[in-house]
Amino acid sequence: MKELVYPRLFLPASERFSTRPAVVDGDYRASYAEHAGRVLKLAGALREMGVGRRDRFAVMSTNSHQFLELYHAAYIGAGVVNPLNLRLAGAELRFILEDSGTEVVFVDELFSAHLLNSLAGALPDLRIVFIGAAGRAEELGADGQPGQGRRLVDYEDLLAGARPVTPEEPEEDDPVILMYTGGTTGRPKGVVLDQRAEMLNLYHIAYTFGLGDQRVYLHQTPMFHAASIGGVMGIPASGGVSVCIPMFDPEAVLKATEDNAVNWTVMVPTMISMVLDHPAFRPERLASMRDLVYGASPMPAALVDRLIATFPELNIWQGYGMTESASVLTVLDAEDHRRGGDRLRSAGRPAMGVVVSIRDEKGEAVPVGTEGEVCARAGNLMTGYWHRPEETAEAFRGGWYHTGDAGRLDEEGYLFLVDRVKDMIVTGGENVYSVEVENAISTYPGVSQVAVIGIPDEKWGEAVLAIVVMDKGASATVEAIQEHARQTIAGYKVPKSIEFRTEPLPLSGAMKVLKRDLRAPYWSNSDRK
Amino acid sequence: MKELVYPRLFLPASERFSTRPAVVDGDYRASYAEHAGRVLKLAGALREMGVGRRDRFAVMSTNSHQFLELYHAAYIGAGVVNPLNLRLAGAELRFILEDSGTEVVFVDELFSAHLLNSLAGALPDLRIVFIGAAGRAEELGADGQPGQGRRLVDYEDLLAGARPVTPEEPEEDDPVILMYTGGTTGRPKGVVLDQRAEMLNLYHIAYTFGLGDQRVYLHQTPMFHAASIGGVMGIPASGGVSVCIPMFDPEAVLKATEDNAVNWTVMVPTMISMVLDHPAFRPERLASMRDLVYGASPMPAALVDRLIATFPELNIWQGYGMTESASVLTVLDAEDHRRGGDRLRSAGRPAMGVVVSIRDEKGEAVPVGTEGEVCARAGNLMTGYWHRPEETAEAFRGGWYHTGDAGRLDEEGYLFLVDRVKDMIVTGGENVYSVEVENAISTYPGVSQVAVIGIPDEKWGEAVLAIVVMDKGASATVEAIQEHARQTIAGYKVPKSIEFRTEPLPLSGAMKVLKRDLRAPYWSNSDRK
Repeated sequence: MKELVYPRLFLPASERFSTRPAVVDGDYRASYAEHAGRVLKLAGALREMGVGRRDRFAVMSTNSHQFLELYHAAYIGAGVVNPLNLRLAGAELRFILEDSGTEVVFVDELFSAHLLNSLAGALPDLRIVFIGAAGRAEELGADGQPGQGRRLVDYEDLLAGARPVTPEEPEEDDPVILMYTGGTTGRPKGVVLDQRAEMLNLYHIAYTFGLGDQRVYLHQTPMFHAASIGGVMGIPASGGVSVCIPMFDPEAVLKATEDNAVNWTVMVPTMISMVLDHPAFRPERLASMRDLVYGASPMPAALVDRLIATFPELNIWQGYGMTESASVLTVLDAEDHRRGGDRLRSAGRPAMGVVVSIRDEKGEAVPVGTEGEVCARAGNLMTGYWHRPEETAEAFRGGWYHTGDAGRLDEEGYLFLVDRVKDMIVTGGENVYSVEVENAISTYPGVSQVAVIGIPDEKWGEAVLAIVVMDKGASATVEAIQEHARQTIAGYKVPKSIEFRTEPLPLSGAMKVLKRDLRAPYWSNSDRK
Repeated sequence: MKELVYPRLFLPASERFSTRPAVVDGDYRASYAEHAGRVLKLAGALREMGVGRRDRFAVMSTNSHQFLELYHAAYIGAGVVNPLNLRLAGAELRFILEDSGTEVVFVDELFSAHLLNSLAGALPDLRIVFIGAAGRAEELGADGQPGQGRRLVDYEDLLAGARPVTPEEPEEDDPVILMYTGGTTGRPKGVVLDQRAEMLNLYHIAYTFGLGDQRVYLHQTPMFHAASIGGVMGIPASGGVSVCIPMFDPEAVLKATEDNAVNWTVMVPTMISMVLDHPAFRPERLASMRDLVYGASPMPAALVDRLIATFPELNIWQGYGMTESASVLTVLDAEDHRRGGDRLRSAGRPAMGVVVSIRDEKGEAVPVGTEGEVCARAGNLMTGYWHRPEETAEAFRGGWYHTGDAGRLDEEGYLFLVDRVKDMIVTGGENVYSVEVENAISTYPGVSQVAVIGIPDEKWGEAVLAIVVMDKGASATVEAIQEHARQTIAGYKVPKSIEFRTEPLPLSGAMKVLKRDLRAPYWSNSDRK
């Protein structure tokens, strides 16, 4: 079947809106015709590099028009895009590139040295395309260190030399995104999303938020994140304008919004506070904003009140979802935010087309108000984990996708997340799996026990805390353990604080560390953990 | 696959909006919980009558809450609904019930005598459920004429005795609607639409028009029409209110809109004029209307101007589509109407998710501006014609659905319909295929040649005209031929006027009547034919 494939939206929109602005990225401007022209050339270049429609290519880049072009090339059938988290440590990066069988990596100027250093001679056949100032690729490639003699290609040279190609129309079950997410086993897992799942995610977003040619969307959330996908896919499919800033920065958000009359964006609550608290903030600078979507964690009621008082016309939305659901499972809508009250702590209600069910350990649905695991059935769910049939079967056991989050539904269907079954910490919008951090710390000489939990943090929502018990006679400093962890895991996963204890950690009957007990003193004033 | 099935929307919406108003029909009021409760009982009743999920049941009724319930029972998986055109003549009705293998018919008070007379002893196993005043069923059934001894069941008795049943979740390729449409062979063809097509039609509508719990929709266009499907499916899936009036009537439209603050409806231009010209019309009575959708033919520019002048905030939309496309293929949007000009004569641009292509007789796409047959690829297209594999293959030849309409696209993708390949007349929003009318007249004694065309008509858009050549020495009156035709075709298909000629009709090289030449003198002041 081919009805639910992105080129059916993208290609007609490129013709229909051909002369209208499609992309703004600093001084770069492209009309729909120009943007689509570059995407088709990129499709041609990928084909010339031997990337077929089911082959993976990776992108390690801050937000840019090139990143959008790479997404759109994949979406129209030129390959499977593997967007890399920019905060991955070298070992994680190498693992993902190897695990995914990625053949080509596109890397921007900021991350080229990190990528080359991370490879350190591994994956010698990997081809690297450099997104940045022309000529820099050659310079990096010629230099044995960090280029290691690799021949880097300039992105613009690649496009200039390519013949535009409209790939054969993909099938609905063609994979289009392979996006890695932290894993409970301590190693990232690749989430495979096909055309159909991505398209239904988009239809659910259109149904919920509305799409149209009056939209001006600001990309500030990293494009490698599932939270960006609504903007990445939806805007160019409906005639709107995609405005890019390389990464979140309060002043850049204010300037891009003001300059381009941005009316829609996605942020996390931390980012919103930072913008409102910035010395350059003045309400007029954000006056064009109509819809503000946030995710990752509930927004504090005081922040909602402040936003509504400052921008009475602004619609505030919360989306809850994960990479495995392409993006959205539930939505707390603008009316819910205006109404306020306890439901501001909820994740809202299922998006149209999504069915949510709270289920117990036996897989049975539990009554309203009872806690259990949040499960879903929806057309926007992943095909499965890349080359992990057991973990895929486990995630979909009983015909329901198991999110790993614990929660309950109230009598009107609002979802309250009450714990993370998978023991996940959300810090600044990023998911950190405790086990990954525990693994990284447990190899430090003399560590006897370690438990990693999230604790409340004004700025990040949650901060990573490690509680460590050393062997008798052994000792360590906070800094030494942090430094050790930084060798194997991304900086944002490294504990912000470490607490040393002498007594053994509390254990359950099944000999598992009782994390609830460890968390309790930190969360006594909060509803969430 | 089960993601694109209507119960995934309908059942959660019924819980989510349970206490809110779902249906208003005269004095009848139902909340979401009450409406869904009746639908589940109806599903139980259908099962008890032996109707399985792929079995057909028919409905012959003016608009009512019961008609909505019957649709929703089918949509959640209790059977395939066969909505009957109320203007069908007895022979057509009998043909459709036999052709479709319909086992149960629901008929309202107004049409029960017509249905029973039409059956005239045929289909003795057909079960008939009577929608109307309690007790009337028995009276009709007991009476040999017109009841013919059939046992009619009262709809309310049926529900009262039924156990609520939630049918097993349907599959996406389960047929859900079998809707008959006029055929070029002179016999109606059954259009089969499955869950997936209906759901994608709904998603396209949501994408284009927007859906949400603030919608109050007025059903005045007959529910048996594809044009009603957006309202029939979309409103109960998103928390809005469905307001029913039995059939179009200017005063009833004004009263229902005023009483219920209706903000969305679908009409044909003829109906809009009749409302505006009615002595009881005052702009305040329609002040709540936000979106007015019309179909079947372009709206005269003068009427658009009048509407916009009277209701500056009103969004006017034109939808073009057919039974075979569930409903919408192209849309002329509110902005297009505000802009005015030549494009008011177009059918707008493809709905998001629909691809339109103009193709020549060899199946090749023609250049922009060139006339050809309007073809489409879209997820909202029919599975095919019921038990007509050849006609289905013909309709989908070359992988494109062939609408039978001729048209051209302009350089910005607007579709202009320029002729009807199938030789169809649109009169008061109804499609009439000339060949059916020609067949009906050609059997009148002494008729030598007959050609049926549509001519401009102020009230109906087009009126049916028959041009007749009699055998030498034979004669006939207009009334006699009309009366003869009325025996075999619906009243709206019977020619409003008949022109007798003595010279033979002009023929093409392929010996076909040159209808263009016949039409020319009537359409010399019009752009459309």
